[in-house]
Amino acid sequence: MTTALAEHVDQLQLVDHHVHGAFITPLTRAAFETHLNEGSPDPVPPWMTQFDSQLGFAIRRFCAPLLDLPPHAPADEYWARRAELGVSEVTERFLRAAGVSDWVVDTGYGAGSILDVHGMAAASGARGHLVVRLESLAEGLAADGVAGVDYADEYGERLERATRDAVAVKSILAYRAGLDIDLSPPAPHAVADASRRWVDDLAHTGEGIRLVDPVLLRHGLHAAVQRGLPIQIHTGFGDRDLDLHRANPIHLLDFLRTPAVADVPVVLLHCYPFHREGGYLAQAFPNVHFDVGLALNHLGTRATQVVAESFELAPFAKQLYSSDAWGLPELHHLGAVLWRRAVTRVLDGWVAEGEWSAADALRVVDMVGRDNARRVYGLDPLARS
Amino acid sequence: MTTALAEHVDQLQLVDHHVHGAFITPLTRAAFETHLNEGSPDPVPPWMTQFDSQLGFAIRRFCAPLLDLPPHAPADEYWARRAELGVSEVTERFLRAAGVSDWVVDTGYGAGSILDVHGMAAASGARGHLVVRLESLAEGLAADGVAGVDYADEYGERLERATRDAVAVKSILAYRAGLDIDLSPPAPHAVADASRRWVDDLAHTGEGIRLVDPVLLRHGLHAAVQRGLPIQIHTGFGDRDLDLHRANPIHLLDFLRTPAVADVPVVLLHCYPFHREGGYLAQAFPNVHFDVGLALNHLGTRATQVVAESFELAPFAKQLYSSDAWGLPELHHLGAVLWRRAVTRVLDGWVAEGEWSAADALRVVDMVGRDNARRVYGLDPLARS
Amino acid sequence: MTTALAEHVDQLQLVDHHVHGAFITPLTRAAFETHLNEGSPDPVPPWMTQFDSQLGFAIRRFCAPLLDLPPHAPADEYWARRAELGVSEVTERFLRAAGVSDWVVDTGYGAGSILDVHGMAAASGARGHLVVRLESLAEGLAADGVAGVDYADEYGERLERATRDAVAVKSILAYRAGLDIDLSPPAPHAVADASRRWVDDLAHTGEGIRLVDPVLLRHGLHAAVQRGLPIQIHTGFGDRDLDLHRANPIHLLDFLRTPAVADVPVVLLHCYPFHREGGYLAQAFPNVHFDVGLALNHLGTRATQVVAESFELAPFAKQLYSSDAWGLPELHHLGAVLWRRAVTRVLDGWVAEGEWSAADALRVVDMVGRDNARRVYGLDPLARS
Repeated sequence: MTTALAEHVDQLQLVDHHVHGAFITPLTRAAFETHLNEGSPDPVPPWMTQFDSQLGFAIRRFCAPLLDLPPHAPADEYWARRAELGVSEVTERFLRAAGVSDWVVDTGYGAGSILDVHGMAAASGARGHLVVRLESLAEGLAADGVAGVDYADEYGERLERATRDAVAVKSILAYRAGLDIDLSPPAPHAVADASRRWVDDLAHTGEGIRLVDPVLLRHGLHAAVQRGLPIQIHTGFGDRDLDLHRANPIHLLDFLRTPAVADVPVVLLHCYPFHREGGYLAQAFPNVHFDVGLALNHLGTRATQVVAESFELAPFAKQLYSSDAWGLPELHHLGAVLWRRAVTRVLDGWVAEGEWSAADALRVVDMVGRDNARRVYGLDPLARS
Repeated sequence: MTTALAEHVDQLQLVDHHVHGAFITPLTRAAFETHLNEGSPDPVPPWMTQFDSQLGFAIRRFCAPLLDLPPHAPADEYWARRAELGVSEVTERFLRAAGVSDWVVDTGYGAGSILDVHGMAAASGARGHLVVRLESLAEGLAADGVAGVDYADEYGERLERATRDAVAVKSILAYRAGLDIDLSPPAPHAVADASRRWVDDLAHTGEGIRLVDPVLLRHGLHAAVQRGLPIQIHTGFGDRDLDLHRANPIHLLDFLRTPAVADVPVVLLHCYPFHREGGYLAQAFPNVHFDVGLALNHLGTRATQVVAESFELAPFAKQLYSSDAWGLPELHHLGAVLWRRAVTRVLDGWVAEGEWSAADALRVVDMVGRDNARRVYGLDPLARS
Repeated sequence: MTTALAEHVDQLQLVDHHVHGAFITPLTRAAFETHLNEGSPDPVPPWMTQFDSQLGFAIRRFCAPLLDLPPHAPADEYWARRAELGVSEVTERFLRAAGVSDWVVDTGYGAGSILDVHGMAAASGARGHLVVRLESLAEGLAADGVAGVDYADEYGERLERATRDAVAVKSILAYRAGLDIDLSPPAPHAVADASRRWVDDLAHTGEGIRLVDPVLLRHGLHAAVQRGLPIQIHTGFGDRDLDLHRANPIHLLDFLRTPAVADVPVVLLHCYPFHREGGYLAQAFPNVHFDVGLALNHLGTRATQVVAESFELAPFAKQLYSSDAWGLPELHHLGAVLWRRAVTRVLDGWVAEGEWSAADALRVVDMVGRDNARRVYGLDPLARS
């Protein structure tokens, strides 16, 4: 692959528009393998290794060379070398090799065990931008006992404050209630009642704080619409907590048809295996965008096919690149590698067959890998943080 | 691609078994771009052009040469040249270049702004055949105040009259109520009541006439079953009015299991992204056929993949070609171009690998591109209108 | 295809982990064609032949040579030669050519018209292993009038007895009630009541015995969980009795989340067109495995694509090979041929592009084609029955 497009793609500084921090402390190998599996929190059974998967093979192929090993190095050698180099060195190597100019970082899960926005910027020499998770904000209110008629106002104020330096908000509603519920704005008294119930329950049960009440989830979403920042929404696969079929982005249709929602960018994350539905929504609504983020890493060499499938109904101005990496810095790097390889193969194929012009292919790569995200999140193209 | 199959496919005169008329009057560029987007009725946002899509690239690639421009001509040049040539010239060029011998024309939407069956025949030098939309017929009854016990008889009489020269009827039930509703024949008194309610509502609300009552939608469908003509049913993607997941053709299972329905050909239109479900139904029911019509144009070069996916479960006698072009004559031409390219690549690939014989590939192309539609709609192979 | 991988795949003795017996007696051609269609029990319409399908073309391509005919022999010649050779000869040729060392045989449908486990072993010179169908067991109880408080105990005892020499059980719940129902263990009194109702109904209606009661279906499933053998579950397409969308394996999520279920291997059969969902579940639950069995044969050359799609989320230790052949011995052979071709092309492609190492490809082929099934079903690698 030494076409002009391949060279261009290799040089392109990406915006990774949805990502999390890399681990701060060392892992055991068992924990490492568990983190190669998005769906299951269980230990990997003794009769298998999670390295025997598309993601595992892709790590041995594309990450091993960054640890001074040959491509396809055996899992044991990979693990030994990784442990030898240590967390900081491994993290820096992967983050810097990713060719990412901007990380748009969701800090809503695992804070303390992973790098924050500044940590990501420092370790990578790139810029970091903050994404605020709507559900975490609500959980902060509940922890502080905010409920009743104060809840909505306080949520609005905290959202305003928390997002002062943020470029987007994110909802993981798909995990908490599914996307196939009524997503209309709830009435004020319903929000007051629901928050009161929640805080009361917390006092009595002593369980961890986890927002699952549909009324408050909907309230957060519509508060975000009013705030006006781009809204990232998790759709498609994730860990098995989530009912996959209820995380199909198509269930957002009624929400997206709500007039006020048309005024804010909505970005559907991951979508797999419903990325054709994601692409449809990106065609059908001027404010809707989508990516196939998480699937890139977990599908390894099959990322090429999913990227091809993502180039169907959606206009090219509506597609974005993300790795959705969390924890393992391999994922921050590998997502970029796999996307570059996929987009190069797919678009070069069309150019070779005379279907697309070479100039258009270059232009579309820039849009999807960088420019669309800059536009959606209002990133300054020049400044470096 | 100069294989025997490629030459054969290029020469094949197609039956475009589901299509609409081309525009009669000139468009603004803004309107043109809006018509490149099936899903959204909104203006294209100022920060993008709808030309930056698979359909837009395919138009610049395959339609530009028909306007005497080089392949991949820039959008602005394309637009300028198109405007310069004028509606009639552009329409004739595209319709005649499509290589279509028969247009099977649904006139149920946009009458007055687009060519009718005779207009299509005249502009293209090919034959036109009429498809009658079931919902439009019902709306005509409501407009005339026909309701109560007279409704069913009058519907039957008008259907008989309207379809005297028609080759098929069509239902857009997917847009009006979804396919996931009870689709059994309604009781006569339910039809009488529903029609009375509808006509009363029209008198009081003054809203436009638009049939959405499930009882009357079902009645129309079963009246069509009794009439015995092939029934085309919109399934899969369309504009965002439609709940995409409720337009999955698999929801027609109970309807298709109804004994009387087995006696009429049912043709599932478009199906995307549920074309695998469409192919399954075409295998599971002797009277069911399907196409991937609308997706061909809107997926541009990716039409190849969707055509490949349509060659899975369905027997080859159950697949048909359509463009589902509406308005823009580019679409009447491009659908045929993209289908020809797709089927050539896909089938030639199988022949090259020794999976299919060359003779079988030729035969299947004739079936899907022409002969199956002739059989389903009873088209005379020889006469020219 | 003369790569090292291709040679290795050709030599690999497969475990066909889900299959049925081959026909014992001759068929008419009409019956043969009907059996080429999984979805429809109806006669093939006079204006088509079921040979004009991916499965029909694959039979003419890959089965004709085993009958001493050239590849792509016409259907009529194929049929004449097949009739001339006779059932035993045809069956032996196909079964022996399949390169299968172990047939894991579900005998729950068509007993008497097809070979049993011993018959399959004898005709093929390979080993046969028994799979017991949970619903058949329940129907045996009903036939014997077992109901009320005795039902659960008797079911448990018969299950124990019936599976003494079995390697797995199988559920066709998808056909009988759909997978989208409550699948929790029913209360004992509910089982007693439901069985009493069933036996009473049988006495009064005189209808054939067919278990459709959700309570008893659920009871069978959880009895199987307690028994501890691997549970095969039909998911995805089948004949049109089944509501395809309700046979999506994703509906098993709540069942799979049940703690006791985690202790037994669950194998999702077929899955198509929901094999991406099947792969997701195989990643998300350590005990879940899947195959694309039935789709291999019915998709013919397109099996390659579906095999590629099956190599996405699921770890490689969780995928199995099956033909799901029933009746026609062509299917026992062809499933293996198509899987070998598919896996060779797909994995060789990745090796050629440098994405996978050649050694890994060989290893994964052994896992999916043989070793995973040996592990799941506890098959002795050496003994021959």
